[in-house]
Parts: sequence; C-alpha cells; structure tokens
Amino acid sequence: MRRLIALLERAAAHGCRLVVFPELTLTTFFPRYFLPSPEMAEKYFEREMPNADTQPLFDRARELGVAFVLGYAELTPDQRRFNTVCAVDVDGTIVGSYRKIHLPGHAEDRKMEHQHLEKYYFEVGDVGFPVVTLAGLKVGLATCNDRRWAETYRVLALQGADLVAIGYNTPVSGVPGMNPEPHRMMEEHLLSVRAGAYQNALWVLAAAKSGVEDGQRLIGGSCIVTPGGDVVSRATGDGDELVIGAYDPGVAEPFRAEMFNFSRHRRPEHYQLIVERTGVGEPVVAAIAGGHDD
Amino acid sequence: MRRLIALLERAAAHGCRLVVFPELTLTTFFPRYFLPSPEMAEKYFEREMPNADTQPLFDRARELGVAFVLGYAELTPDQRRFNTVCAVDVDGTIVGSYRKIHLPGHAEDRKMEHQHLEKYYFEVGDVGFPVVTLAGLKVGLATCNDRRWAETYRVLALQGADLVAIGYNTPVSGVPGMNPEPHRMMEEHLLSVRAGAYQNALWVLAAAKSGVEDGQRLIGGSCIVTPGGDVVSRATGDGDELVIGAYDPGVAEPFRAEMFNFSRHRRPEHYQLIVERTGVGEPVVAAIAGGHDD
Repeated sequence: MRRLIALLERAAAHGCRLVVFPELTLTTFFPRYFLPSPEMAEKYFEREMPNADTQPLFDRARELGVAFVLGYAELTPDQRRFNTVCAVDVDGTIVGSYRKIHLPGHAEDRKMEHQHLEKYYFEVGDVGFPVVTLAGLKVGLATCNDRRWAETYRVLALQGADLVAIGYNTPVSGVPGMNPEPHRMMEEHLLSVRAGAYQNALWVLAAAKSGVEDGQRLIGGSCIVTPGGDVVSRATGDGDELVIGAYDPGVAEPFRAEMFNFSRHRRPEHYQLIVERTGVGEPVVAAIAGGHDD
Repeated sequence: MRRLIALLERAAAHGCRLVVFPELTLTTFFPRYFLPSPEMAEKYFEREMPNADTQPLFDRARELGVAFVLGYAELTPDQRRFNTVCAVDVDGTIVGSYRKIHLPGHAEDRKMEHQHLEKYYFEVGDVGFPVVTLAGLKVGLATCNDRRWAETYRVLALQGADLVAIGYNTPVSGVPGMNPEPHRMMEEHLLSVRAGAYQNALWVLAAAKSGVEDGQRLIGGSCIVTPGGDVVSRATGDGDELVIGAYDPGVAEPFRAEMFNFSRHRRPEHYQLIVERTGVGEPVVAAIAGGHDD
C-alpha cells in the first residue's frame, strides 16, 4: 500500500488525473502455485473493496483528485472467485468493476515450479467488457491476457472507449509448452497492445508488475500507446516506476474519421462466425467456384 | 502478363508451390481516379477468368505445378463490379474466389489528384471470407484493407486457415484527411499483418505493388509473416521482386496448443457487440457498481 500511494502521489505531482495499477496488485501472482484446493488460496482474496488495507489508497486518491484502476483477487459473498479490476473515480467512488474474461493457462496441476493456474483459481468473468467514466474520460477495462484477443478492444471501442486500461503480469518464461527467447514475450506484448490501439483508434494504458516476484522474473514493459499504435511512453527499468503521458483526444480523430470509421467500413454480416464458433471448424463460406459462367 | 509469368517461373525454380500476386494485378489502381460514372471504368474490368489475356499465366502455372492467387477487377454478367481475388490450384482450376469486403475510402468525388474511390467503383463482397485448398494448404483469402480489420483473420482462422493470402496496394500519401510521415504507412501495414498472424497463429503472405504507378508512389513492403508474428522474408526494393519463405506447419503448433487455443480460451458470449453493432454506440455492459455489499 505504501508503494502504491507513493506512485500515486508522484503521478498527482505530474498532473495525472488517471492512474492504472497492475493486475493482482495487492498480492503475489499466486496462480503460479498449485494448492490442493482453490479455497486454500483464500488469503490472497479480498472480500470487499475498499477494505481496511486499501482504504488509505482510496482516501489519498480522493484527496489528490486522481482516479485509478486497481487489480485484485475478488471473493464474493457467495464464495465465487474472480480476477477483478475496480475503477475508482476522482471522488473515491467505485464506478465499475471488471472480472477477467480471457483466463489463460490451465486448470490441472502440471507439476511444474511455475504454473499458470488461472483457470483453477478463477471463474470466467460474468459482466462483459465495461466502459466507465473516470476523470471525465471513457475508459474501457481489460486485464492481462485480454490484450492478446482482438475481440477485447473491439467490444470496448464499440461502446465508445477512448482509452483502455490493462493491468498485467507476464512471466519471462512464457506459456507452458513453449520455451521462447525472452525478448519474444516483450515483442508479443507490444504487438498486441499496439495493434489493439491502432485498429480501434484508442489509447492503451498497459501497467505491469516487473522485476522478480517470488523467484519468477516478469517482463514488465508498462507503456502508453496512442490511437496510431505508437508507444509514446514506456518503463525503462524493473523497479517501481511511473510511466506518464499526456492524453490528447485529437490523436484519434483522423483515424476515426477515415480508416477506422466503423459505421462506414465495418461489415458485421460477414463476422458471424466470431460469435457462432468458439474453436476452429470446417470452412463454411461457399467460395465462388469457377469463372463467371456458373 | 510477361512480368507475372517471369516471377512465377522464378518462384517455381525456388521450389515454391504457392504464389500470391497483388491486388488489382492486371491494371493500374484506377480507384485513385474519379470518372463521371463507374461504368466508364469498364476497360479495367475482367468479364471472365481466365480470359484470353490471362490464359498464358494459367497455362504456365499448371505446367509448373504452382498454385496462385491473383487480384483483379471483376465485372459479372449482370453488371456487378467487385474487387476480386481468384485462387487457382496447381492443376489450373479456380477453386475459389473472394470479393473484397472492407472497401476503404469514399464514394464521392473529393476533387483531389489521387483519391480512394473503391466505394464508388465496387460493391461490398457478397461471399464472406473463404478458405480454399491450394497446393494442399488451407489458404484464407483477403485483400488490402481487410488486413487492418481483426475480424478478417479471425473469421478465416475459425475456418481452419493455416495461411492468409493478402494482395494489396497502399499509397505513401495515406488516407484522405491525414498527411502522415511516409514511414507510418509501412509501420501500420506491418503492425496489422503481424498482429493478425500472431493472434490467430497463422502465416500471412502479403503481396504489394511497389514503386511509382501512374505518378503515385506505393509503399510496397511485401512480406511473409509467421504464426509468431515475425516477418521472416520481405521485399527490399521497389521493382518486380520475389519474396520467398519455407512453410513450416510446426511453427503454429505451440501457439495453437496453448496461448491461442481458441476452444479453450475464446468467450463468444462476450463478443456479441461485434456482430450486433456496426458503429460506435453507448456502453451496454452494466459494470458492477460499488463493492460486494450490493
């Protein structure tokens, strides 16, 4: 809490009105560990928000007039568990929450030192991708692995998001079954957030844990991406770091007016498979056979 | 035709089984010009495929056992006009065609030297995004501006495409209303094809016209992108050039098994807006308000 408040105060000193903290900010990234039952991870979950531990952050943010987005593990009164983000406006009010939809990894114990057990500890989010108003801006909420799925940004953009706040934790060691060169993970991260920003003409604020957490190195790479897909600000080290940028709504305008003018160019009648199928199936489009004589 | 056949023969000499030619290969990119009626552009359109002009290409490809993808302007017997691609297998048979869906630009005369009048000259494609079998490979078809829309790759990947063939023409001067630095256009092109490849674990074969065509400079930048989003082969100049790569299905496997295992990770129940809306509207997701007391 002390570290979060210190970053918040530095942000306020730079004139920031909106701060994005990482995914699962309040605890270690415990889905790397297998426990015999998900219930045994109880100590990592928050039963209410704010609570006694986080109230000082809410109070300080309200004093400073800074909105923030905070990731944490949520345990509901009926014992459901989600990988959650709350969006807190400048007056200290929670104006919305998001429960992570694209849970990566696996549900079964793979008997490795570092696993990716989000499907074991969390339910799939049940509230969709929300757009909330923070510091007067329309902010879409998403988390970590959501940033690799194009549907995330599109659903948020179609609701008018001007910025998307994405907290994340990405280990250098990559996904199970792969042993990539470390720079790949950063490249794939930047490719995902840049493409999501560009193809939807919105800003992306991506905030990561960095450094070594409980023996696992994380890629870090927090950054701010413009609606043109350009990284304009980026973390340089692996410690606590403030990455700041000046929000300019004008950057999105030419893209929204022409290239990504959705109402003029999108063709949902040809996108049906995106919602009709989950996995890969056979071709369904009857390609025109032969020449023009048919 | 002579230049296309020369490239085809060079490809065959390198052992290539599949060749992708650019969009509107057979003519200049005439949508840059306004004519008082679309019918006056008749000379740029093909009434059948193959025809007397293109038969030599079909014949030579069959002799060499090379499949190819060719973009051209199509005029149907009932006078409909499309920006079309035909897919020709190694035996010279057209196994499928694609009619461009994401027509960029505008339909009205903007009185500029170089316009982007695809919406004036062409109808929106009416056959969806097809996946065809060429040289034994499952190839998805798309064209030019389609590559900037994430839906294109997803609809093709959901039908089992292992490669996506994309011919294109992109002028350095950019979209109307923008006057970008020239390098931006290349960066946005590469960002789009790399993200589409990575997020769908498939290969992208992107083939451009390059150099100066009728006084308009094109970005070129033909390339082959792996399912990891890496550009492994790329045009280096602005003349006729063969860009070759070795197709390896194994590159996609670890991505398809884990990170982009669609059936395990996709959540179509949260993607409905993608097909329910064309343009941007109000937020519809009821974000959870407040803490856990509600």
